[in-house]
Amino acid sequence: MRVFITGATGFIGTHVVHRFVEAGCEVAALVRRGANTGPLSGLTDRLTLVEGDLRQADSLTRSIVAINPSVCVHLAWYVGPGYLHAVDNFEAVAGTAALLGALSQSQCRKVVFVGSCAEYEPCAACLEDDSPIGPRTLYAACKRAAWLMVEQIARLRGWSALNPRLFNVYGPGEPEARLVPSVVRALLAGDRSPLTSGDQMRDFLHVQDVADALWAISSSDIEGPINVASGIPTPAGDVAREIARQLGRPDLLDFGVLPQAIGTPPWLCARPGRLHTALGWTPRFSLASGLEQTIGWWRQRIHDAGRLSAVSN
Amino acid sequence: MRVFITGATGFIGTHVVHRFVEAGCEVAALVRRGANTGPLSGLTDRLTLVEGDLRQADSLTRSIVAINPSVCVHLAWYVGPGYLHAVDNFEAVAGTAALLGALSQSQCRKVVFVGSCAEYEPCAACLEDDSPIGPRTLYAACKRAAWLMVEQIARLRGWSALNPRLFNVYGPGEPEARLVPSVVRALLAGDRSPLTSGDQMRDFLHVQDVADALWAISSSDIEGPINVASGIPTPAGDVAREIARQLGRPDLLDFGVLPQAIGTPPWLCARPGRLHTALGWTPRFSLASGLEQTIGWWRQRIHDAGRLSAVSN
Repeated sequence: MRVFITGATGFIGTHVVHRFVEAGCEVAALVRRGANTGPLSGLTDRLTLVEGDLRQADSLTRSIVAINPSVCVHLAWYVGPGYLHAVDNFEAVAGTAALLGALSQSQCRKVVFVGSCAEYEPCAACLEDDSPIGPRTLYAACKRAAWLMVEQIARLRGWSALNPRLFNVYGPGEPEARLVPSVVRALLAGDRSPLTSGDQMRDFLHVQDVADALWAISSSDIEGPINVASGIPTPAGDVAREIARQLGRPDLLDFGVLPQAIGTPPWLCARPGRLHTALGWTPRFSLASGLEQTIGWWRQRIHDAGRLSAVSN
Repeated sequence: MRVFITGATGFIGTHVVHRFVEAGCEVAALVRRGANTGPLSGLTDRLTLVEGDLRQADSLTRSIVAINPSVCVHLAWYVGPGYLHAVDNFEAVAGTAALLGALSQSQCRKVVFVGSCAEYEPCAACLEDDSPIGPRTLYAACKRAAWLMVEQIARLRGWSALNPRLFNVYGPGEPEARLVPSVVRALLAGDRSPLTSGDQMRDFLHVQDVADALWAISSSDIEGPINVASGIPTPAGDVAREIARQLGRPDLLDFGVLPQAIGTPPWLCARPGRLHTALGWTPRFSLASGLEQTIGWWRQRIHDAGRLSAVSN
């Protein structure tokens, strides 16, 4: 299987590239000029890095025609500050449009377009075909708009179109401002960790399980929307509590200090749905073992950074 | 009202520019380099032609910021050969994304995004909020995708978002390959006119009525999807019959000679819905008077072309 992956240097993309290479795929990864490809090093014999940009339609088309992938996993999207309401989401739709135009000139037969739980009207047990779609944010509307395009070109060309919808993903490489890294780093440093009430119910999945689920989906005959989720509703506060338990510092958690962001839904959880029923897929990590592995990664990273800074001083 | 209009040199756009100028608006029209702006001549004191392209996001943004429109009427779309299934629709979505990004840097308060009957699951009496949306073509899916973006940025910024859905539009300036021009031109020349069975039921509206409806909508408080239609289901064959009746040449119509395009729905008609109930708008032209005016326009055009060619010979 020859796979073209966008967003390959991102938090999730890095793990997806590793999983697809491990599975024996030939992987071509689109990377922007100057992107940090460090997390992809060590894979170079089975991985081709393609320097390019979804905003450059002409050179993108040339690259894709040359690679001629059979599968495209499209992860690239704007995830910077305020991404839920940023107009940068429009650029991600435009980039998806350019990508689909380029793919339609190749022999590609399958597009895996990574979507989000944000596309659902928030509920306690979102299920692929039953739960209403209610984009409440520009991010969700733009993900949905892009999926409409993917779905229709696939129908026209006889491709498979897959729309894995990710819920809350954590693990090595997660951006530092988010829940798990901020709690882990604060507690490892012995600092207090300011938190919201932590009552919001979410579905957490370790990023390596997400990458494995994307591989399972991509190598199956399944089509359409597919929840990528554990199916276990969990208060966000329990994630912080589990980290604190493992690090022996529950005294450092300051619940209720941060306000909930406006519009934060109390429940946004999944039934794992077709991933379990159609594919029999289950996660490898529990929340406890996934957090343990993640804490270990941060310990190592902080240790390495300390060594580097000691060397350079 | 300062209005920015895209697609201004197209069949419908030309009439829309005229109608908005006539209503006293300051109009800025985006035109591609080298576009035929002839149909817009004679409006130059109240019309600014802005040379640009939706594919050039940076210069588009500079233009829109300089113009600072309060309303944008977005008509530009790919309507070339095979437009229902052409990948060029992706470029139109990307252009819409760029336009919305640019508008969000201006004081624009209203976006009129022109949609299509093709967005509905075909039925005998499509109504805005009742009838299921079922994009069956890439064109329809991409129009829908673009509307999702318009709707959400409007919600976020407190703009009004309008989605007039056009049905079958005919009149002066219509591309020659389409039903009305092809029948009119054949019969004026004394040639036979090959036709399908003509059984498909459609809703026909004269382009000047469409332009007037777009003005009525744009200058009202209405929001959301709005059918722009006569509400009178008409067999497509009756349009040819009426032209032949007016020209006294029913003998030249060859019904059943052309096959229906694959996927042509037998019914795709509208209840005019909110345009009538909320705005009290009704068309000025009947089918008979609209075709009469259109035939007159073609007579004049053919006459002028003949004179020009006589002069140059």
